[in-house]
Amino acid sequence: MQQAVKPVIAGSFSALAWQDNALQLLDQRLLPAREVYVECTDAAQVATAIGDMQVRGAPAIGIAGAYGIALQARVIATSVDWAASLAESFELLEAACPTAINLSWALKMMRDRLARFPSDSDVPARLLEAARSIHQSDHEANLTMGKLGMQLIRKHHKTPQNLLTHCNTGALATGGYGTALGVVRAAHEAGLVDTLFIDETRPWLQGSRLTAWEMERAGINACVHVDAAAGHLMKTREITWVIVGADRIAANGDVINKIGTYALSILAMHHGLRFMVVAPSSSIDMALESGDDVEVEERCAAELFTLGDQSIDAGISAFNPVFDVTPADLIDVIVTEKGIVERPDTKKLADLMSHRHLH
Amino acid sequence: MQQAVKPVIAGSFSALAWQDNALQLLDQRLLPAREVYVECTDAAQVATAIGDMQVRGAPAIGIAGAYGIALQARVIATSVDWAASLAESFELLEAACPTAINLSWALKMMRDRLARFPSDSDVPARLLEAARSIHQSDHEANLTMGKLGMQLIRKHHKTPQNLLTHCNTGALATGGYGTALGVVRAAHEAGLVDTLFIDETRPWLQGSRLTAWEMERAGINACVHVDAAAGHLMKTREITWVIVGADRIAANGDVINKIGTYALSILAMHHGLRFMVVAPSSSIDMALESGDDVEVEERCAAELFTLGDQSIDAGISAFNPVFDVTPADLIDVIVTEKGIVERPDTKKLADLMSHRHLH
Repeated sequence: MQQAVKPVIAGSFSALAWQDNALQLLDQRLLPAREVYVECTDAAQVATAIGDMQVRGAPAIGIAGAYGIALQARVIATSVDWAASLAESFELLEAACPTAINLSWALKMMRDRLARFPSDSDVPARLLEAARSIHQSDHEANLTMGKLGMQLIRKHHKTPQNLLTHCNTGALATGGYGTALGVVRAAHEAGLVDTLFIDETRPWLQGSRLTAWEMERAGINACVHVDAAAGHLMKTREITWVIVGADRIAANGDVINKIGTYALSILAMHHGLRFMVVAPSSSIDMALESGDDVEVEERCAAELFTLGDQSIDAGISAFNPVFDVTPADLIDVIVTEKGIVERPDTKKLADLMSHRHLH
Repeated sequence: MQQAVKPVIAGSFSALAWQDNALQLLDQRLLPAREVYVECTDAAQVATAIGDMQVRGAPAIGIAGAYGIALQARVIATSVDWAASLAESFELLEAACPTAINLSWALKMMRDRLARFPSDSDVPARLLEAARSIHQSDHEANLTMGKLGMQLIRKHHKTPQNLLTHCNTGALATGGYGTALGVVRAAHEAGLVDTLFIDETRPWLQGSRLTAWEMERAGINACVHVDAAAGHLMKTREITWVIVGADRIAANGDVINKIGTYALSILAMHHGLRFMVVAPSSSIDMALESGDDVEVEERCAAELFTLGDQSIDAGISAFNPVFDVTPADLIDVIVTEKGIVERPDTKKLADLMSHRHLH
């Protein structure tokens, strides 16, 4: 991977963009201190970027995976056994982030397209077109979800509200605009946001580093707090909605999302706040009956025992789960680009997903 | 303040100790990486050490304040207007940490003693004796609370349990042994602890830095997690007790403690776990009718936006409350050295405090 000299889009930013026959990724580990783009030119580099969290957010990981296949197709275009080689890249990418269902969804989309290309196709060009289409569709889905979520808020409130969010679900985590943060953007545009309270989201601090950075750029009034302050804020700051994303949604409406989401849903219920989950339908895994069937990924203890360059390791163990499971009955509404599902359950999600169409 | 060359107590540690006519404080900002003792020789140095969090934990702050008066009395012993000068030191120390009621309690104890000294007294020697007595009493109170809390656990469980705690309430935060962590120590000695799960406790990380360090030294099986994982742990790890300390307890049983305690109490109730608060009776403020009457201290945003030497400031504001208020009705039991109070309320606390005796 090389470091690109200048931002891909002047005056703005994009978590991922195709430029100069390469995938340019805004290195999210360095934000907000530095805006550095890294360039990926093959699938292995994309898999590493996902594993190292240079690119993160379930939808963005899916899009990066699709571009990874398009890149690899260019690399091996003249190779005799390119089909076998590409199959290996599919596997490599699939393993880079097992929980984000959007990744396997995007790779399946790419596989399906590949299988249908006419035999005389320019495969690399067509795979690039397919990746771009996934990227573009995700962006459009976000705009739709933003509008649907904003309308839900407007149904209940006519004045600016205090909202609370967790992790980063914005333009950095998606094909652009954002899922939960897309709803915040749309609500802001509709004059419905007083303050967005942002969980800092340990250990990676996606809230204080990334969501704060996006909100500052968007001119949305926001305020960061430690994760443990969320309950105190709900009691003292008249918050009306908690709005979060999802890494995967089970067929019964259980939501697998960043560690801390489950606790927020309990705190929201205790304080009588509404709890909204925003995710594209590509996050819904109809093959997963219940959230409890998921094995929660764990990352290394060092993430908890390192502050900048400083070690705070006292010599005891750490439990560092990446995700938790929020049961459907603690969720007021799931917003997807296909529509909203209030008080989600198996039947309602099956209805939502019954008319499959490529978005 | 000077850096002491060697630990005060070889092979062990003490958060604060009187040695070489000075107060030796183990600098808690540097743990667990380095064990450095700083030497205070007057009241102003002690006030600074409290403000800078070199010494922390409500009981330890109270003891440090008492020693601060004893130190200052030595400095001004030959001064003509020593009484006026000492009055200034009382005010300076009182202002160093307004929320920890133990500090004003300890200073009041010192004032009361001073007022009763015979006119021909060696005031510095007698004030030092008074400070030592406060220190010693706190240590003894911790041992009593440890036993009472352990007996409560044993009443419900005969086998090793998984416990969860927040912040640091151990030997580092007190005159020795600990409050909530004292109960954990006593329970461990009684064979009642499987694993202690420790909230890392942002932003100062007293859990991962200090509690982890103490547990490692004590040989108690413990595991650190991010604060946002507490709900997930309660659901998945068969935790039976949440055990925390208190910075102040109101007359109605509301508990003011480290930010995050309130959320834990809600999560504990949701999961059917018992919630135990452990604090000496010097933490009970009978003049404070309800926890909601307290103004919660806030610290600066930089504490959230600095990681080691690294800035992660994205240019938006932060809300950094130090404490929150846990209402009495979410608390199963308050353990003090005077006895335990189950399902605390105004009447029960008044009964507990009715026979005031110096402990």
